[in-house]
Amino acid sequence: MRGIKYSSIIMAFVLLLVTAIPVFAAGPDPSGAATAEANPTAAVNFSWTLIAGFLVFFMQAGFAMVEAGLSRAKNTVAVLTKNLMDGLIGGLAFWAFGFAFMFGGSALSSGLEMGNPFIGFSGFMLSGDAYDVTTMELWFFQMVFAATAATIVSGAVAERTKTTAYLAYSFLISAIVYPIFGHWVWGGGWLSTLPFGVGARDFAGSGVVHAVGGFVGLAGAILVGPRLGKFGKDGKGRFIPGHNMSLVALGTFILFFGWFGFNPGSTLAATDLRISVIAVNTFLAGAAGAVVGVYFSLMKTGKIDLTIACNGGLAGLVGVTAPCAYVSSLSAVIIGVIAALVMIWALGFVENTLKVDDVVGAVSVHGFGGLWGLIAVGIFADGTYGGVSGLIVGETGQIIAQLITAAVVLAWALGMGFVVFGLLKATMGLRASKEEEISGLDVPEHGLEAYPADALPVES
Amino acid sequence: MRGIKYSSIIMAFVLLLVTAIPVFAAGPDPSGAATAEANPTAAVNFSWTLIAGFLVFFMQAGFAMVEAGLSRAKNTVAVLTKNLMDGLIGGLAFWAFGFAFMFGGSALSSGLEMGNPFIGFSGFMLSGDAYDVTTMELWFFQMVFAATAATIVSGAVAERTKTTAYLAYSFLISAIVYPIFGHWVWGGGWLSTLPFGVGARDFAGSGVVHAVGGFVGLAGAILVGPRLGKFGKDGKGRFIPGHNMSLVALGTFILFFGWFGFNPGSTLAATDLRISVIAVNTFLAGAAGAVVGVYFSLMKTGKIDLTIACNGGLAGLVGVTAPCAYVSSLSAVIIGVIAALVMIWALGFVENTLKVDDVVGAVSVHGFGGLWGLIAVGIFADGTYGGVSGLIVGETGQIIAQLITAAVVLAWALGMGFVVFGLLKATMGLRASKEEEISGLDVPEHGLEAYPADALPVES
Amino acid sequence: MRGIKYSSIIMAFVLLLVTAIPVFAAGPDPSGAATAEANPTAAVNFSWTLIAGFLVFFMQAGFAMVEAGLSRAKNTVAVLTKNLMDGLIGGLAFWAFGFAFMFGGSALSSGLEMGNPFIGFSGFMLSGDAYDVTTMELWFFQMVFAATAATIVSGAVAERTKTTAYLAYSFLISAIVYPIFGHWVWGGGWLSTLPFGVGARDFAGSGVVHAVGGFVGLAGAILVGPRLGKFGKDGKGRFIPGHNMSLVALGTFILFFGWFGFNPGSTLAATDLRISVIAVNTFLAGAAGAVVGVYFSLMKTGKIDLTIACNGGLAGLVGVTAPCAYVSSLSAVIIGVIAALVMIWALGFVENTLKVDDVVGAVSVHGFGGLWGLIAVGIFADGTYGGVSGLIVGETGQIIAQLITAAVVLAWALGMGFVVFGLLKATMGLRASKEEEISGLDVPEHGLEAYPADALPVES
Repeated sequence: MRGIKYSSIIMAFVLLLVTAIPVFAAGPDPSGAATAEANPTAAVNFSWTLIAGFLVFFMQAGFAMVEAGLSRAKNTVAVLTKNLMDGLIGGLAFWAFGFAFMFGGSALSSGLEMGNPFIGFSGFMLSGDAYDVTTMELWFFQMVFAATAATIVSGAVAERTKTTAYLAYSFLISAIVYPIFGHWVWGGGWLSTLPFGVGARDFAGSGVVHAVGGFVGLAGAILVGPRLGKFGKDGKGRFIPGHNMSLVALGTFILFFGWFGFNPGSTLAATDLRISVIAVNTFLAGAAGAVVGVYFSLMKTGKIDLTIACNGGLAGLVGVTAPCAYVSSLSAVIIGVIAALVMIWALGFVENTLKVDDVVGAVSVHGFGGLWGLIAVGIFADGTYGGVSGLIVGETGQIIAQLITAAVVLAWALGMGFVVFGLLKATMGLRASKEEEISGLDVPEHGLEAYPADALPVES
Repeated sequence: MRGIKYSSIIMAFVLLLVTAIPVFAAGPDPSGAATAEANPTAAVNFSWTLIAGFLVFFMQAGFAMVEAGLSRAKNTVAVLTKNLMDGLIGGLAFWAFGFAFMFGGSALSSGLEMGNPFIGFSGFMLSGDAYDVTTMELWFFQMVFAATAATIVSGAVAERTKTTAYLAYSFLISAIVYPIFGHWVWGGGWLSTLPFGVGARDFAGSGVVHAVGGFVGLAGAILVGPRLGKFGKDGKGRFIPGHNMSLVALGTFILFFGWFGFNPGSTLAATDLRISVIAVNTFLAGAAGAVVGVYFSLMKTGKIDLTIACNGGLAGLVGVTAPCAYVSSLSAVIIGVIAALVMIWALGFVENTLKVDDVVGAVSVHGFGGLWGLIAVGIFADGTYGGVSGLIVGETGQIIAQLITAAVVLAWALGMGFVVFGLLKATMGLRASKEEEISGLDVPEHGLEAYPADALPVES
Repeated sequence: MRGIKYSSIIMAFVLLLVTAIPVFAAGPDPSGAATAEANPTAAVNFSWTLIAGFLVFFMQAGFAMVEAGLSRAKNTVAVLTKNLMDGLIGGLAFWAFGFAFMFGGSALSSGLEMGNPFIGFSGFMLSGDAYDVTTMELWFFQMVFAATAATIVSGAVAERTKTTAYLAYSFLISAIVYPIFGHWVWGGGWLSTLPFGVGARDFAGSGVVHAVGGFVGLAGAILVGPRLGKFGKDGKGRFIPGHNMSLVALGTFILFFGWFGFNPGSTLAATDLRISVIAVNTFLAGAAGAVVGVYFSLMKTGKIDLTIACNGGLAGLVGVTAPCAYVSSLSAVIIGVIAALVMIWALGFVENTLKVDDVVGAVSVHGFGGLWGLIAVGIFADGTYGGVSGLIVGETGQIIAQLITAAVVLAWALGMGFVVFGLLKATMGLRASKEEEISGLDVPEHGLEAYPADALPVES
């Protein structure tokens, strides 16, 4: 019986192998020798971009730890599985489909020739001309961004979603939803060429990554519904504490750390020395956001809420992600402060007005924080970099492009979020059964407990 | 009511924005184009320095995990909050004030012209001429060092200090205490030009960062007093176990990892190929220190104390931080061994002689380990780098400069530590109430439990 | 009494210092100035290689967290101690002996002149001519690889091995077992010059690192015997759950992150732009392996086993480690899929056929996954890099070299594993007593509990 399964799997792959032989054709420079010869700065730019990408990859661990810590112990294995797998499945989806949809037609490197302002269609599976060191470098950095967008959603739908449905979602967002919007802004698509200012600018993805993830997450959280017990009979939201604040803090540190790959790495070049300004702005906005979180909770309740501090810091980071390259350090501080206030407002709006249960605050941090980041470019860009100028230096065109982009990302992410999660709901079903939710998802969905009593110390 | 709070905060920032318009003026090269043109190696040096700085930033997570693990569960949220926020508040303080005090007058880059041998005074808020890619790069790397000094103190005063008082402290050390001493050694101040050897040398901050943090921590631990129950009626110290050794080990690994940014990154240049020697020496000293910790505890008690192993490794790293660039690999091993022995001696001295309660051993590891590092430069520097030569190659001048610096850092850090914590004690109060300490700080100060019983698995 | 211990230790080191004075002689370029002058690309290559090495070092934390999580709480301190110390002791052993055995005779850099096809013998303690920036850079990167091989074994012998015996083992593998096999493949030894294809090729160490670690671990696990209760009276293996899946997932993320240093860093040069292809292949194989783990367990049991997902991802990474530089992205996916299937098969083989208790699956993931990686080079190498061509492009010579290498590593690692662990068993003893094992190793061997009841929250 098991033998049959093994052999059928192996045979399937041998078959795939044979049919795929043409795919093994290589592009113009698969070894990199010609590129290195032609461009002596390629080495420092490749190493910068790849290392930055490694840091962004590590953010997956940060998302996992934050969400695990803010969930109850009985759902921990489910949370960890989702967070481990969404980036990996998303990365495979981005390899097979997403990258081609996003960067086809951008002509940024070899194998990316075909596309139009709305969608690209070359570079599938990094095959043929895309088997080239420059295209591979671009793919790697872009893939970890796609994986970030995918994993943002996880926290919004935690503790009651079927893991299998979530894994299907992670394929779809990375193959289709994220790349198409990304094409519009970063792949040479229509938003990047809007006739206002220099066209829409979103340096490292407040909109492309964070707002997409945040509002797809909002759609998901609406369709899957709130956790049992989240809203009382009076309709008021109830605080459901997570099981491990050490994991929350650890995850926040890891995310902050990874953000230094996310934002400065988005130059794709160390020869662009603006990277130092970007690193500084990233830090300052995150720090300012966390400080706002601390003192806001202290003023309001007399106590310092660590969760708000963490989310304040993350909101500051999300908010500065679009403008990080275009603004001064003082502006970065202000952007971080406002991002945290926006996030705090949104937490109340999502829970009390929309009556949506977002376990980790992903919609507020990434969704609304992301919109603010897009808008901030139009306000604070000071004209010292990339020709981008905002209200602060008297230019009024850029903010129009940014507002349009903010509206488009909101509509696209919410709309496609409803489509994707709606389809999954109609087919596989989104929600774990009531019994599973009460017992926790870990045993029924995963056959494992995160912290089995047998393995823990005996009470003395 | 809430509306008022929001609007007043937003109005305050609009006001700040308006008054700060002149601050938005840019320096000579905010985009980096001119610098890249003038200096083809800038790209590799910027990328090296920034990535090293990212690793140093991540050490904040290491400090947080070690301290959380060595504290009791009931104080975990307080520990995490302190560790998350001290680096972020410290970074903002360093942006507004500390950097200008430390590097003003150093003329290391644009906007840092004004200062004297005792204090600098240009570069505030990275504005004006300091809005330049080279100054921003320097700021980022120096800021993460300031944040490290700040967070070292946290562990010494854990489990009984009011979080709000601690946050105020973290502003003051990063704005004033750390930068002024730093100016003397790294900002072109009087210690760097002592007429012995080549003047004081502290390559990556055994003294500037670690001894400052360690002895400010000693002052703090003295003023806040020991935890309830730490010293029995007989005056003997009692071992109070922490709640999670997995976090302690994880934190130690993260610190070790981050140290590879701390020490090798302090060249501020990858074109300085001595970075490989520094990386090797950093590893070897840390490894040797940990081995001493293991076998010391094994010889003394027949058991291997993991905490001593971790602290031995950290002491080795602290000890090699000043000499890492100036010594051979064999010297690095010896420095690490002696650092661990010094740390072990200091653990007993602090607890049994001084009767001070230092929860994580910060005074011993960073304070005394840091002094040893300063002295080790004067002994082991072999003259192969930077013109620094110690006793081992027959030069007797350098050690005098190092001993003076060790005495000065001890006096400065202890003295300023008493001033800062004394002021806070007299105004805000340093210590949580007896009831809060017994119940744990988390609920009274933060309104959260780190591991709420509701969220944990039900006993089966 | 304590005074005597201190003084004797200090005297021993003074003595060492005096006798070691000749060792302080420096090599051709200890400062790096001449190398930088001669080779303008040295800076980018040093920084790339060192940063990659830092990431590999951090994998130690990943191994520690995975093994701790998969063990029971009562053995956590022992697990953490082993994992902290094996890399550090291993690194010191590699400094004193291993590096010279491995790279002596390779003439890769200064001080590595002496050796033959079977063993090297220059470069001990990085002294004399080896005190050179290029040799130091090579040492650092190779040392973290040696430390990885050492720590792989830890998980196979967890929860019943005496910590002291394990520490002795970690010295021996890093000083002797790993370096000698490494010499044959990477130090210019006989396997690298086999007259088939271009000689054996193992780009980043599927064989040199992972299979060595895995099969030494198999020998260790056999000699130390299974945990009490692992095999029932019917001889069937029983599942013993670990205590913390959050640590397992965190560790897996850290390992995946560190692998981006492991594989791409193995070019030792950023000027070799193939690094982008290697990073892509590393990701894709790991992702494909994890997906196989998820859907395999889902098909087999209806539930998604997170442990199998993690081990599937790690197996994919191990499998692609040898071929990562030589294959296309589609091949990387296929290699990862097969690696995960091999690992799943091996889990059953080790437990049910060999009746060996391997706590974390190290033999299956690293041992069998490593063999598969060696073989995969001979199948999938597409000739675009390094002149290595496999069956897929019609060359039949390379696979012969790879099969020979796979056979040799299996024989060497198993054989030497039996010798080393056999010696330790005959002298120090390998196994904790039955009482210690039942109570957990932490208190008897370490005098510490990982999670002491006193420090945990009081049940409310």
